Amino acid sequence: MPMLIVGELINTSRKIIMESVERRNAEYIRDIAQRQVAAGADYLDVNCSNVLDNELEALRWLIENIEAVVDVPLCIDTPDPEAMEVGLSLARKGQPMANSITGEEERHRTVLPLIVKYGAKVVALCMDEQGIPETAEDRLRVAHKLIKKLTEAGVAAGDIYLDLVLKPVSTGDRAGLEVLDAIRLIRQECPGVHLICGLSNVSYGLPNRGVLNRVFMIQTMTIGMDAYILDPLDKKLMGYLYASQTLLAQDPYCMKYLTAHRQGLYR
Amino acid sequence: MPMLIVGELINTSRKIIMESVERRNAEYIRDIAQRQVAAGADYLDVNCSNVLDNELEALRWLIENIEAVVDVPLCIDTPDPEAMEVGLSLARKGQPMANSITGEEERHRTVLPLIVKYGAKVVALCMDEQGIPETAEDRLRVAHKLIKKLTEAGVAAGDIYLDLVLKPVSTGDRAGLEVLDAIRLIRQECPGVHLICGLSNVSYGLPNRGVLNRVFMIQTMTIGMDAYILDPLDKKLMGYLYASQTLLAQDPYCMKYLTAHRQGLYR
Repeated sequence: MPMLIVGELINTSRKIIMESVERRNAEYIRDIAQRQVAAGADYLDVNCSNVLDNELEALRWLIENIEAVVDVPLCIDTPDPEAMEVGLSLARKGQPMANSITGEEERHRTVLPLIVKYGAKVVALCMDEQGIPETAEDRLRVAHKLIKKLTEAGVAAGDIYLDLVLKPVSTGDRAGLEVLDAIRLIRQECPGVHLICGLSNVSYGLPNRGVLNRVFMIQTMTIGMDAYILDPLDKKLMGYLYASQTLLAQDPYCMKYLTAHRQGLYR
Repeated sequence: MPMLIVGELINTSRKIIMESVERRNAEYIRDIAQRQVAAGADYLDVNCSNVLDNELEALRWLIENIEAVVDVPLCIDTPDPEAMEVGLSLARKGQPMANSITGEEERHRTVLPLIVKYGAKVVALCMDEQGIPETAEDRLRVAHKLIKKLTEAGVAAGDIYLDLVLKPVSTGDRAGLEVLDAIRLIRQECPGVHLICGLSNVSYGLPNRGVLNRVFMIQTMTIGMDAYILDPLDKKLMGYLYASQTLLAQDPYCMKYLTAHRQGLYR
């Protein structure tokens, strides 16, 4: 399956984005949108859910400015169903993505109808009322439940991006391996769905986090993860992504790798 | 399975080693042996097969000097059966390794009896009279044949280190993937054997070879390769190896990773 990269930088939990939103600094937002797309992002995540006074207005402003300069679709990232509807209804470029739904009843009742209404792709977090699953088998069980509910509501398997919810390896030696084993199980048992993750949680609490993030990206790609929410301006991370694709026969004539080399990603 | 690292630096195809052998510079050889072991080598490869005038005497001298300063076993690396016998008979530290045998009749007739006689581990190259196999299935077929011959002669499965013989990805897009698929097949069908490779061939002809070598190490580790012939003084390579083990639950409490960090492997 082709790789899908969601650029993560437009998020008001990042100080520079919060300031840009507060000051309505459109220039910075437009620039960071363009730079992420130029660096390889297929989707742009938009998250202003910690703007407490007026998330809806901030979201509207962000979408307007991003779509003024780039043509990739947006990934609307909010826990608030009202903001999700505003985001999905405003996003006009391609097929939007809803980030996220979980196995929790409440999220299904409020968010699932929006996904169906707007024909969106969806990030489905492998967790439910019991929290984040511990083992690979528990993740598989929650994944089955989620996929069943989503497809029964009319969402195509190919529009589902399962997020296996990484825990930091600093909190338990098996945190990485359980996710890797879960990928293997889901690839066997759940044909057609995509697998996505945000990488940085795995390295929380340890030094040289970039190394661990890169390694886990390569490990997960090797066994079938095909989407990442990441910082496309991280040259090393993107360089390792292309190198990994080259060795997985996803890079005809090593063209991506050689282009990355010429662009200085390995310097 | 625990990881096995064979240090590759004592090889007279490297100019500095050839000069040290020609001048009988024991100090350099002893130093490079000690540094490889200190950096994590479990075995030391010894290859002076391109010393044309007197390989046997050079081999004797190398083994004597290496074993004077380190306690790890040696990997006797030569195509010459006579040199193999000299090497295996002289190596006194632990269980020696013979590098290598292939699926070719001639190698079996001459080298297999030595492996049995000296109770050595063996690197078994997945190639035969037809050359290096192209596809994963061809590699599996040659692997089955090799394992059958070796175990019938009395070699324990756990003493066999299959080398799947990497081709450069610059010569064909599927070069890496066919080996990865072969690992998966062999892990399913051939319990007990080990899988080993020298990494550097995969990156031949491309820039930033270290990146590709590191990525392929991580990819192969993820699906079950458990031995590498490599340069243990390559800090980045070793750093990524430990990071990969950390995320594969082969590093209790992240101790290897944190030690590598303190030793500056990620700088």
